[in-house]
Amino acid sequence: MDGNVIVGQSGGPTSVINSSLAGVYKTAIDRGAKKVYGMLHGIKGLLDGQYVDLSEKINSTMDIDLLKRTPSSYLGSCRYKLPEISEDRETFDKIFKILDDLDIKYFFYIGGNDSMDTIKKLSDYAIVTGSDIKFMGVPKTIDNDLAVTDHTPGFGSAAKFIAATMKEIIRDGLVYDYPTVTIVEIMGRNAGWLTAAAALAKSDDCEGVDLIYLPEKVFDIDHFMARVKEIAAKGRSMVIAVSEGIKVADGRYVFELSEHVEFVDAFGHKQLAGSAKFLANKIGAELGIKTRAIELSTLQRCAAHMTSRTDITEAYNVGGAAVKAAFEGETGKVVVLKRVSDDPYMCITETNDVHQIANIEKKVPLEWITDDDFVTDDLIHYIRPLIQAELSPIMVDGLPRHLNINA
Amino acid sequence: MDGNVIVGQSGGPTSVINSSLAGVYKTAIDRGAKKVYGMLHGIKGLLDGQYVDLSEKINSTMDIDLLKRTPSSYLGSCRYKLPEISEDRETFDKIFKILDDLDIKYFFYIGGNDSMDTIKKLSDYAIVTGSDIKFMGVPKTIDNDLAVTDHTPGFGSAAKFIAATMKEIIRDGLVYDYPTVTIVEIMGRNAGWLTAAAALAKSDDCEGVDLIYLPEKVFDIDHFMARVKEIAAKGRSMVIAVSEGIKVADGRYVFELSEHVEFVDAFGHKQLAGSAKFLANKIGAELGIKTRAIELSTLQRCAAHMTSRTDITEAYNVGGAAVKAAFEGETGKVVVLKRVSDDPYMCITETNDVHQIANIEKKVPLEWITDDDFVTDDLIHYIRPLIQAELSPIMVDGLPRHLNINA
Repeated sequence: MDGNVIVGQSGGPTSVINSSLAGVYKTAIDRGAKKVYGMLHGIKGLLDGQYVDLSEKINSTMDIDLLKRTPSSYLGSCRYKLPEISEDRETFDKIFKILDDLDIKYFFYIGGNDSMDTIKKLSDYAIVTGSDIKFMGVPKTIDNDLAVTDHTPGFGSAAKFIAATMKEIIRDGLVYDYPTVTIVEIMGRNAGWLTAAAALAKSDDCEGVDLIYLPEKVFDIDHFMARVKEIAAKGRSMVIAVSEGIKVADGRYVFELSEHVEFVDAFGHKQLAGSAKFLANKIGAELGIKTRAIELSTLQRCAAHMTSRTDITEAYNVGGAAVKAAFEGETGKVVVLKRVSDDPYMCITETNDVHQIANIEKKVPLEWITDDDFVTDDLIHYIRPLIQAELSPIMVDGLPRHLNINA
Repeated sequence: MDGNVIVGQSGGPTSVINSSLAGVYKTAIDRGAKKVYGMLHGIKGLLDGQYVDLSEKINSTMDIDLLKRTPSSYLGSCRYKLPEISEDRETFDKIFKILDDLDIKYFFYIGGNDSMDTIKKLSDYAIVTGSDIKFMGVPKTIDNDLAVTDHTPGFGSAAKFIAATMKEIIRDGLVYDYPTVTIVEIMGRNAGWLTAAAALAKSDDCEGVDLIYLPEKVFDIDHFMARVKEIAAKGRSMVIAVSEGIKVADGRYVFELSEHVEFVDAFGHKQLAGSAKFLANKIGAELGIKTRAIELSTLQRCAAHMTSRTDITEAYNVGGAAVKAAFEGETGKVVVLKRVSDDPYMCITETNDVHQIANIEKKVPLEWITDDDFVTDDLIHYIRPLIQAELSPIMVDGLPRHLNINA
């Protein structure tokens, strides 16, 4: 093994992004890496000279197992897009200088769309300057909006948390004997994959969600109100899943509709209610039905106590596969998941040119959204295998144990 | 065994209220009850003639175990307070007629403050009319605000969910290398027990919550802003726990402060932001710090996938103890928990006159709240045993399985 390894994490964290970090670290060590560095706060932190020697932090197989169960980015994160090479070579020269000083030969970056842009630019720049450093992208995002890959690590665990939580919210929401409306707002500004996961709640022990609205399809408020009225008229309580990013026909987000009235907070700022809150208010005001709006919020991406074993294993595997590929000479690639069988579910890893992946958003196909405000069985069958099985948290004194770089 | 048994659930549901139902049902059957009826939607439903024969619904020990793991009220719930006996004997006569028609000799009601009022009035009325029906209260509430009992079943599991979730939110919230503020709003309009549970997140693998604000103590906004500024000045991100019920010196809730500006939604209604949202807006506007407000919302009381084994066992035991006491002739009582040892933690059940419990709210003692916006070790030591151990969900096809009376 010639040279050292560095790995970073970037973008919004997930419940399993650290499992990919574990996969990179463990595989690199097992395959003979001398040193494995971790960038702190991604490429932005590296530019400021922030990094650690990971072997000083991760000391045992127990640490590896805790790392897999630790939500958010162990190494910290950043939201930073590298400049275009043509506009600012200085930043790139600075990064390569830091890498050379640490004798880095292998560079791994775990992240979503924007992070893959970092791999693209750095590997392009390596070609320009003749650097032999290998750059590999390791995908993660709860949003599942990355191109080429069957799905992204992080999505399955978020989907499992959402589906499990919806089952619990449905039990809670149907408890009274008069109609109530519970609207649950789910993450995904442009892609509805996570909101679609709410459909998985339906089973022989659960009534399921009544209506599901994804951002891919224009949201018709009048139609929505009519559906709610229709269900309430049967005396039924209902639970509805909406994406934070649903939009009306003129292109405005639903949560932007409140901008058109006085909606100014104590500090003179227009405050926008979320989509769910806006719709709950409207139902309460116009139909006189008791409503509740719930935002699943950050919990969707950090509920490490309820991850999918399938997801966490795949997250580990894409990290390991990136190391294997880089050590074998690949660069400018992203590891992707390829579903080779539906039943039984089987996925393998492949590598793919980063140029086909960076900055592209994969949305839910319109044919997977039904006219009766739900999703098709095809979509449910696509997601179902990704939420299977669990990785039990390691509980200490009543709470899940994590690995904390600051502790 | 003479006569039959009826049991109902009332008020806001919890993750473990069905464990108490399981305790009542199983103990009654084991002790020779002929029939165990379940009121649907509490006393309100019973008044409308809604009840089921539970032995037709709960068919196996597997069902009992699923029931323990099912959140919300299996039998449905109501929010209904019986009238005063002196004002409306008709309602009472109607209830007793229904009970007599079903040959009920034992009546169990699982609920909080208001539900204990139902037990008080029914047992009082039984004395007035010479009825020999035994009435027993089984306590539940996530709010832990019931008098006499050491704590209430339901609190430990909500506290565990809150503490575990705070650990995850803290990992997520500290991920960037510039100061951010995450404010988490926790249930409990008048009692701060649940918000205090956020303190349990702090441990050798977790920085813990920075500041905690309970409704028992006047909330000083200027002081709060100064504390946030002080922590941000050190370059640190922070996570803050606030009760939904925090109030300023003049007695207004923090979430009511936004009433004093234009805050009108599309339907002409004044919309109140939650406490967390209000404070996050204020910090963003006045200190220019990136903020996020999170409402834990309904999840606190229905996250049955993450319950405390201690809590769920105690919930079962108070149900069973109520049956034992009633079968031995007690009436007009509530089962309470008495802590007989702190270390090792041990709790026993006792029965207590319902008149000392109904309609009384137990708050956090002021001496357990510190001047530096946190809670004392005494408070943490009080809660810690209540979150210990787990009851694993029974996972089917990737999701927790429930028992559904409608399925």
